[in-house]
Amino acid sequence: MKKLINDPFRVTVESIEGYADAYPDILRLVSPHVVSRKAAPVRGKVGVVVGGGSGHEPLFLGWVGYGMADAAVLGEVFAAPSPAFILDAGDNMNFDMAAELAITEGIENETVRVWDDIASAPLERVQERRGIAADLFVIKVAGAKAETGAPLSEIKKSAEKARDNCRSYGVALSSATIPATGKPTFTLGEDEMYFGIGAHGEKGVKKTELLTADETAEILVKGLIEDLPFRGGDEVNLIVNGYGSTTLMELYIMNRKVHQILRNSG
Amino acid sequence: MKKLINDPFRVTVESIEGYADAYPDILRLVSPHVVSRKAAPVRGKVGVVVGGGSGHEPLFLGWVGYGMADAAVLGEVFAAPSPAFILDAGDNMNFDMAAELAITEGIENETVRVWDDIASAPLERVQERRGIAADLFVIKVAGAKAETGAPLSEIKKSAEKARDNCRSYGVALSSATIPATGKPTFTLGEDEMYFGIGAHGEKGVKKTELLTADETAEILVKGLIEDLPFRGGDEVNLIVNGYGSTTLMELYIMNRKVHQILRNSG
Repeated sequence: MKKLINDPFRVTVESIEGYADAYPDILRLVSPHVVSRKAAPVRGKVGVVVGGGSGHEPLFLGWVGYGMADAAVLGEVFAAPSPAFILDAGDNMNFDMAAELAITEGIENETVRVWDDIASAPLERVQERRGIAADLFVIKVAGAKAETGAPLSEIKKSAEKARDNCRSYGVALSSATIPATGKPTFTLGEDEMYFGIGAHGEKGVKKTELLTADETAEILVKGLIEDLPFRGGDEVNLIVNGYGSTTLMELYIMNRKVHQILRNSG
Repeated sequence: MKKLINDPFRVTVESIEGYADAYPDILRLVSPHVVSRKAAPVRGKVGVVVGGGSGHEPLFLGWVGYGMADAAVLGEVFAAPSPAFILDAGDNMNFDMAAELAITEGIENETVRVWDDIASAPLERVQERRGIAADLFVIKVAGAKAETGAPLSEIKKSAEKARDNCRSYGVALSSATIPATGKPTFTLGEDEMYFGIGAHGEKGVKKTELLTADETAEILVKGLIEDLPFRGGDEVNLIVNGYGSTTLMELYIMNRKVHQILRNSG
């Protein structure tokens, strides 16, 4: 798998630098793995700090700015070569440790975990699910609430409400490749696709033959609706996104069918 | 090459539909191949109509909206399987014919061709060059000027000035695949890259071994600076973009080096 990079072990710090070069009016590089809003910290406002691995941009550095996050802390790409669920655990553990450290320094804080990926655990064990696309909505809601000057407890409540109303379902036609290893994180035949993949190159939970966009959309939306029932008239905030190398053309074709299904469900 | 599509011969119309579904507040579908601003035509304002093939989204449908284009006319993907330069000629011919038709209907109009791709012809024959990334700046400038209520002749002049100050240079690590044929438009070895590719899957003008991002940036920027000399203190409006499947991480790494070079040149 070819990549337009320099040293595979420097892709994270170099891409963060390049991102900061692109948006000097919005943010600054605090250290090689940390970006913050240009004017952070904002006095009198609860700070929203987000973070995790790299390799799934714009998550997280792309969400630093007014009305969203105050800072992002960025790890290496998928923490190669360890399996991604270890990274997830590591993320959580590191954030827990940081939270404890902050408390010893007298900085009040709360952590909101996101668990929207319906493929990663059954609904009964929702807290074991991975956080994927819902990060966008949860961080947006938390950031907007913080911007109003709301206290920490209310921001947490809003973020949790957003989280509890989100569901996501992913599908892949090919694997991710981690720059540091140059190897795909799973294998998939030329006529196969994989439902239930994660955001860190995790393999899916169900392989199928390569379906059409419409058939794929039917399976994804059916899964989501069954997990979080909604009724006609409910408002839905929809995101149809790729993992970096899906063309806009394909995403628009998926979006078309998802809209058709939702219109017919309502 | 796997694609998340339905009928390969319907990718264009279905993706346009999906795009219109995503932005109903901004635009509407006029016919299967035409989108316009929701409230177009805007009375008392010169209309900006853009168009060409599909397959290089967001060009052109993504540029319909306030301050940019009033409508976009969208052809099939790269007009497969004819060589792309024929499509370019076809685009121009069709727009010339449309312009003539408009005149017979009493609609005054002007056409601005874009020729920023330095790899496609030498500077002495600049008018034979392909229009690629500069479309963005030319359409933005024309659209912004039209929004001020300027007359057609002034809009044309502004658009031409933007065009004359733009230069672009592309590079590919792999080929595009046209959905209707399922085949790559050119071949490239595992350790090769191609400088001077076009926006319609045209092969490049020079193959090299696979270079690092920094080496690649040096070659691209050197080519651009030699073609359009600039002096320290000049303002540069820079776009570093991919053709749909380059990850943001790679683009940020390229952006980092381009900024370094420009800072050191100034």
